[in-house]
Amino acid sequence: MKVKPDSAVPSACVDAEGAKDVAMQVLIGPDDGSRAIIMRLFTVAPGGHTPYHTHDFEHLVRVQAGRGVLIDAAGEKRELSVGQNVFVAPNEKHQFANPFGEPFQFTCTILNPERS
Amino acid sequence: MKVKPDSAVPSACVDAEGAKDVAMQVLIGPDDGSRAIIMRLFTVAPGGHTPYHTHDFEHLVRVQAGRGVLIDAAGEKRELSVGQNVFVAPNEKHQFANPFGEPFQFTCTILNPERS
Repeated sequence: MKVKPDSAVPSACVDAEGAKDVAMQVLIGPDDGSRAIIMRLFTVAPGGHTPYHTHDFEHLVRVQAGRGVLIDAAGEKRELSVGQNVFVAPNEKHQFANPFGEPFQFTCTILNPERS
Repeated sequence: MKVKPDSAVPSACVDAEGAKDVAMQVLIGPDDGSRAIIMRLFTVAPGGHTPYHTHDFEHLVRVQAGRGVLIDAAGEKRELSVGQNVFVAPNEKHQFANPFGEPFQFTCTILNPERS
């Protein structure tokens, strides 16, 4: 069993193409003993955004702080706030952006691509 | 893509043996199209607790509101508050309890036992 606060988890800038001012923390992952699932926390600074991209794995997202915008495959935007949950299916194009003035934080949980 | 607030998700009492005053909402699961992972939100009322039990799947827990206590396999207690993350490995005995005065909420994410 492992217990840790966000503040004990290192943060790394997301340097993927199309990402701007996004930091990621692996809250629970393989280093904690989790074989199947990885829970990450993303912090998007005001003016920042994740890549507008697709991938073959599903995202389970939950807003933790601030507000943001979800852009879907059709380019439509939906505002997100604390207590909103988002399911992104495999291969659905999506982007998370923060046009607001406070940091936008969400957890994004995925299958461990190297799960045993 | 599916977006929903907690308030749009039905809540059910957890009637497992050893559970007291615990409600569960499936924030994202098979009904949303998620095949691999299920994200649940548990609300433990003051005085309530989950079962003190084990199972063969891992838990990825994140405190969302209030405070609670985690009881580990040795019976040791650790206080949990917002921004704490807990990994419970398969077959580790554990219990979440709320000896405090406000509702204790946490997400608990698991593999879908019927995943394809």
